Amino acid sequence: MTVAKSNDFPPLDPNAGVPFYRQIYDRFRAAIASGLLKPGDRIPSARALTKELGLARGTIESAYSLLAAEGYIESHGQAGTVVTPGLSTLTPVPVPALQQISNAAEVSFRPDSILPFQMGLPALDAFPRKIWARLGAGCVRAMQPSDMVHPPIYGLPALRTEIATYLQVSRGIGCSPSQVFITSGYRHTIELIADTLLKAGDHVWLEDPGYPPTREIFRHMQITTVPVRVDQDGMVISDGLKAAHGAVAAVVTPAHQSPLGMSLILPRRLALLDWAAKSKSWIIEDDYDGEYRYVSRPLPALKSLDRNGRVLYSGTFSKVLFPGLRLAYLVVPEDLVERFEHISQTLAGGSPELTQAIVTAFIKEGHFARHIQRMRKLYAQRRKATAIGLETVLGKHMSIASQPGGMHLILQLKNQHSDRLLSARMRESGLYAEALADWTMLSEAPAALLVNFTNIGSQSVAEHLAKRILQLI
Amino acid sequence: MTVAKSNDFPPLDPNAGVPFYRQIYDRFRAAIASGLLKPGDRIPSARALTKELGLARGTIESAYSLLAAEGYIESHGQAGTVVTPGLSTLTPVPVPALQQISNAAEVSFRPDSILPFQMGLPALDAFPRKIWARLGAGCVRAMQPSDMVHPPIYGLPALRTEIATYLQVSRGIGCSPSQVFITSGYRHTIELIADTLLKAGDHVWLEDPGYPPTREIFRHMQITTVPVRVDQDGMVISDGLKAAHGAVAAVVTPAHQSPLGMSLILPRRLALLDWAAKSKSWIIEDDYDGEYRYVSRPLPALKSLDRNGRVLYSGTFSKVLFPGLRLAYLVVPEDLVERFEHISQTLAGGSPELTQAIVTAFIKEGHFARHIQRMRKLYAQRRKATAIGLETVLGKHMSIASQPGGMHLILQLKNQHSDRLLSARMRESGLYAEALADWTMLSEAPAALLVNFTNIGSQSVAEHLAKRILQLI
Repeated sequence: MTVAKSNDFPPLDPNAGVPFYRQIYDRFRAAIASGLLKPGDRIPSARALTKELGLARGTIESAYSLLAAEGYIESHGQAGTVVTPGLSTLTPVPVPALQQISNAAEVSFRPDSILPFQMGLPALDAFPRKIWARLGAGCVRAMQPSDMVHPPIYGLPALRTEIATYLQVSRGIGCSPSQVFITSGYRHTIELIADTLLKAGDHVWLEDPGYPPTREIFRHMQITTVPVRVDQDGMVISDGLKAAHGAVAAVVTPAHQSPLGMSLILPRRLALLDWAAKSKSWIIEDDYDGEYRYVSRPLPALKSLDRNGRVLYSGTFSKVLFPGLRLAYLVVPEDLVERFEHISQTLAGGSPELTQAIVTAFIKEGHFARHIQRMRKLYAQRRKATAIGLETVLGKHMSIASQPGGMHLILQLKNQHSDRLLSARMRESGLYAEALADWTMLSEAPAALLVNFTNIGSQSVAEHLAKRILQLI
Repeated sequence: MTVAKSNDFPPLDPNAGVPFYRQIYDRFRAAIASGLLKPGDRIPSARALTKELGLARGTIESAYSLLAAEGYIESHGQAGTVVTPGLSTLTPVPVPALQQISNAAEVSFRPDSILPFQMGLPALDAFPRKIWARLGAGCVRAMQPSDMVHPPIYGLPALRTEIATYLQVSRGIGCSPSQVFITSGYRHTIELIADTLLKAGDHVWLEDPGYPPTREIFRHMQITTVPVRVDQDGMVISDGLKAAHGAVAAVVTPAHQSPLGMSLILPRRLALLDWAAKSKSWIIEDDYDGEYRYVSRPLPALKSLDRNGRVLYSGTFSKVLFPGLRLAYLVVPEDLVERFEHISQTLAGGSPELTQAIVTAFIKEGHFARHIQRMRKLYAQRRKATAIGLETVLGKHMSIASQPGGMHLILQLKNQHSDRLLSARMRESGLYAEALADWTMLSEAPAALLVNFTNIGSQSVAEHLAKRILQLI
């Protein structure tokens, strides 16, 4: 293990037209890519580098925070900051040929049961149900006639305010409550955006692989989806530009690409924002689980870099609270507020007063922030326990890709196993998995299973379930 | 007052191809229309007529129930059944020229406050909030992990079952729970129908005057709306046939035309069903307040006559419970269940588990049926008190049309007053009214205000408010 010195890097250029934090970030990335810095190598502390370069501490911290957020470096506390061990697993996996499966079971992305490994669910056993019941009973008892009329169509003002505050603190997004629109879930958010900004025949970039419901919704609305390849740095913006420069919008999952888990690196974030600003296109940032990151602090949202009002930010309470709530939200650029208000007046059904009131109380009393903190720790444990348990039993048949965040693991199948076939068999026998193939449009995806780990309580549970999978292979 | 005898009518014809109940109904209507039977005239009891004609009691009762439901006759209990006094007020009102109002205030059909006369609200003070709070607290405390996952996308099975049972008993609709889709409100219902059955460019009949949001939604979806005139018998089906025989759908409010309040008479119901069957069109029955009828028992739904699976029935809990719930439902013909399931899978956000669970408990424990009964009595009182109070103070300036049901009164303005101007002034001074002109597309509507009476507690309150209106005239 070597200690990287700042003089390993070319000097910063004050005339480059690129901010210093960005130059530092670029240099570290280049050093890692070239092998100059290797996984496990220690890098200078932010304080040391600040002193050495004679720059503001904040500049260095911005660069480090981005590098950490993108998984390049990790802080080990007193032991210093190192290039992430095992970083090589973030590089692209070789692509085995996909077996053609004629009898693939029909996949529903709307599970309403709880099966082991079921995707999209937070840890239901760890939810503070007693606190929730107390707040809920309080809200329902406090209901006055004025709470019984049509709820404000954009959402309860108190909830919009809490969300705006939370986004500022946790995701680096500066917005006013009037930019926050409450919806009944991600699909409703996408519909609201499409109803307001898109029309039949428009082109929209989607990540490939990507969350299948997004393309289903657009297909229904006769909007043409343009699959854009994802590599180890997230969506390949240059591919999008080549395929459909004039697209009206792009849907991205910058925090943890859905489903592959890498974050969209800064240069691509900037390239995407640049494209949107120049071509007057919209970026739809789906930040479905941005809070859940285990190798470093959560990454600031792409929206936080949006200087030209091109980013629409989609958040949800389904992952940080629970899906049965049916509450999500959309943050729109200030210039679009009136258009979204107008469309909401015409179309939206609105969300019930009661569920909004309970969530507002939950946030106000501090339970929301505490719950996210607790879940972040719990998920890191469960993720590790699940990975080890599966690896122990199934190591010969699949390898587990390391991801910096999210709520699921990717089990890459060896030996030409078909992910569609295996996931269908798992569902038949009461286990859950989704096949990466079903999330893929044009890209050649490796055969892999997506399995949620948030409800797997221990390594022994994971091993037990893994043995059941083993019998299906 | 004369007692009409059954031998005033031509004999029934067993070979007419028209059921007896329909022949009896037709004969009474013809007699009333021709003046043979006058308002206040007593008609034979169902029992007497049963005996005299030698038919089944149910046949006569069906005919009477339709006549009563459409406002032609009223039961006075022991005093017998009479032709509705004041029936002439159901005939069309003369149409004064509409003043052009250049500065009409923008009308929102999304009020989220409570102003006197505010449209669309049930009696909020009379809602059993204690029972509701007890059930709500129980539901929120009983929440288990299995209640926290995505709620079944078509609605909670228990709620769908309760609705199907209720519709059978109260509205004469035979349907299975699988035909019932839970939505977040009327707008969501219309969107769901349009997403499933309609496409841009399609033509849809709308009643003129009619509920403005319906046309806003269709306009947004680029569906062409065809205004169809309403007369004293409801939508003039023959006008619809002339204007757009090939329309893909018709939206009707058969129980109480929205906003004029008359019910769609049986021959027109049959003509509408006949058109839909032959041209493979859809009828969207908006039964927003079918339960609230004061001159007789509630009218069976048009859907109850649907032999060919052409009627989609839209119901809501906004009027019978309260709007803040955001719960409504759609009943689709059996043949369409799969298509609606498919579209719901793609688009719908779903309604929260909690509000659905509370409503289910409220229905199951019998509170729902009791509440509707209580409200029917209370609304009859408040309607009368409001009408008298307004008439006393404002009788010189407006006349109040008698309507058999609903939650609002129509105040027809005399002296060339503009309804738009007056309603705008009322809103400015903290009162609520909607102008009939804003509900009207092509028809020439009389200048009239629509005012809700369900939250007006007494005649003296109505008089007090009427004096405030008087100052604005």
